[in-house]
Amino acid sequence: MDELNAYFLKNLPLIEADLQLFLEKKIPNPYNELRGMMRYHMGWEGAGSGKEAQGKRLRPILALLAGENCGIPTEDMFPFSSAIELLHNFSLIHDDIEDHDERRRGRETVWKLWGIPQAINTGDLMFSLATQSMLRANGSVSETHLLAAVQAFHETCRKLTIGQYLDMKFEGMSSVSTQEYIEMITGKTATLLGFCFAIAPIAAGKSVEKIDLSRKFGETVGLAFQIQDDYLGIWGDIKVTGKASRSDLISRKKSLPILQGVENHRQFYKIWVENDMVSPELAEELAVLLEEEGVRNFVGAEVERYTEAAMQLLPQVFESGNNNAVVVKQIILQLMNRDH
Amino acid sequence: MDELNAYFLKNLPLIEADLQLFLEKKIPNPYNELRGMMRYHMGWEGAGSGKEAQGKRLRPILALLAGENCGIPTEDMFPFSSAIELLHNFSLIHDDIEDHDERRRGRETVWKLWGIPQAINTGDLMFSLATQSMLRANGSVSETHLLAAVQAFHETCRKLTIGQYLDMKFEGMSSVSTQEYIEMITGKTATLLGFCFAIAPIAAGKSVEKIDLSRKFGETVGLAFQIQDDYLGIWGDIKVTGKASRSDLISRKKSLPILQGVENHRQFYKIWVENDMVSPELAEELAVLLEEEGVRNFVGAEVERYTEAAMQLLPQVFESGNNNAVVVKQIILQLMNRDH
Repeated sequence: MDELNAYFLKNLPLIEADLQLFLEKKIPNPYNELRGMMRYHMGWEGAGSGKEAQGKRLRPILALLAGENCGIPTEDMFPFSSAIELLHNFSLIHDDIEDHDERRRGRETVWKLWGIPQAINTGDLMFSLATQSMLRANGSVSETHLLAAVQAFHETCRKLTIGQYLDMKFEGMSSVSTQEYIEMITGKTATLLGFCFAIAPIAAGKSVEKIDLSRKFGETVGLAFQIQDDYLGIWGDIKVTGKASRSDLISRKKSLPILQGVENHRQFYKIWVENDMVSPELAEELAVLLEEEGVRNFVGAEVERYTEAAMQLLPQVFESGNNNAVVVKQIILQLMNRDH
Repeated sequence: MDELNAYFLKNLPLIEADLQLFLEKKIPNPYNELRGMMRYHMGWEGAGSGKEAQGKRLRPILALLAGENCGIPTEDMFPFSSAIELLHNFSLIHDDIEDHDERRRGRETVWKLWGIPQAINTGDLMFSLATQSMLRANGSVSETHLLAAVQAFHETCRKLTIGQYLDMKFEGMSSVSTQEYIEMITGKTATLLGFCFAIAPIAAGKSVEKIDLSRKFGETVGLAFQIQDDYLGIWGDIKVTGKASRSDLISRKKSLPILQGVENHRQFYKIWVENDMVSPELAEELAVLLEEEGVRNFVGAEVERYTEAAMQLLPQVFESGNNNAVVVKQIILQLMNRDH
């Protein structure tokens, strides 16, 4: 994973610097408290700031890789990579309110510290600045392609909010089909990863086929990742994932294994619908039932299927042998092998 | 006011139709509940829907007028006028959550009916669609000017959210200067009215001077309107304004007359800081004090000053004699003379 580490080491400081300078410029000094809420959320200041609080910055890294692959110099990709990271973080600020999450990346959330009203508004501003970040590419990218990029960006936003709408709606529903679930995670997780790979060929004016293939590749990686996350929420090892095993059973999260178990209508289903509360002991029993009823195998196979599909697409998006192809492949492997 | 009524009669149905069709297209049928929240907020469906619930649609009307003035056909302005109305309404959906307002335009607010999480997300989607609405002008407006329009739109959003940040921040402050207050209402109210007049010359590729003058005109109208609203919050007639007289004193709103009275440091100030609760009787007494201390005259003169400044700018923005100039003037007069 040397290429991967080298790529992150080289580019992460540049990504952070671009984001910091852009926010500094757009929210000048009399409004330092407002900028401070963003800087806190981005992990740059306040209690617990630092690498851990900043998150992986995976999305802008992927956008830079895709940019180089399309012949766009790194510095010309920053308007887009920062836009993606701002979009992602705006959605996290609002999601934390919507899900009533008090902690993120080991720290208190923005709404918990500054209240819901300021947190909503700070998210709105960050969302607006994401579009402004892209517009900085005016000049280095042709007007035609920049307008296409803005359009694709807001189509991504539209799908993201539809995914979030479905997620919240599902919480109040007694049954959700696995098909509905895949639609929801496609919107919530896969669409933005698709955009990370689509934005470079859009900005470079590549063919529609190339753009669609790149988007499809990113979406497939996103689905593989999300379904593995669901798998680990029941069968993961807390020492590796940081996620307690069986945790999704205890929190009654509508994840893929659980929805599949319900759809199977066997012993798991009977116990599941009879118990509104799931104790750690019951969760053990349910996990065993899911495994006996073939759900663990099914979900594991789905992870494999999407990962394999992504790997098949990879050489069609990135020229094989190319260093970027190596780094992207290493990122996927790291994403998909967190449990060993 | 015949010209004014004729203009609204002709264009309001077109504005509504464009908004409705656009939302229908962007939020297709499996998501009718999501679209329904927007349609409810826009006043098209649900309990109490209709003219009253839709609001005046003042901003898109102003944008169309400015468009005709710049030689842009009405149908080519809809992408922009609908973007403005969507931006305005997105901000209302979020403001209602932030201010904990349970009612708007005589009906329950979106968050009150569907909960805060769905209301935040619905606002986010509406905000994103506003940008997409503008991009529909691709083809009828040159790419250069469309990119400038998107940039100006998001600069407006940036200023709006900074204004909203200040407004919420002021609530928790014991003293706010009138200067800080003017900055806040410039962001919250005046900026968007400025954009209503600026967007047409931007889209038509007019000179920077023309664009700035148009924006300045709209902002001045916005300030005149907001300060008059503050005046009426203390000295208005409920039969005319729908706003109880002295209401801003009773709710201890940090409006211009009250901030001015505090800055004067005389009798009003003494009583104001000694009473956390303001009874209707005390409000009467305070209103008299403000008048005796010259605040009523001062604020009335400010309304006049901004209105006069707007009227001075009007012929520089709209050719005088032109029917649109007549309509815009009538709109301003109607906005500014609500109390007689």
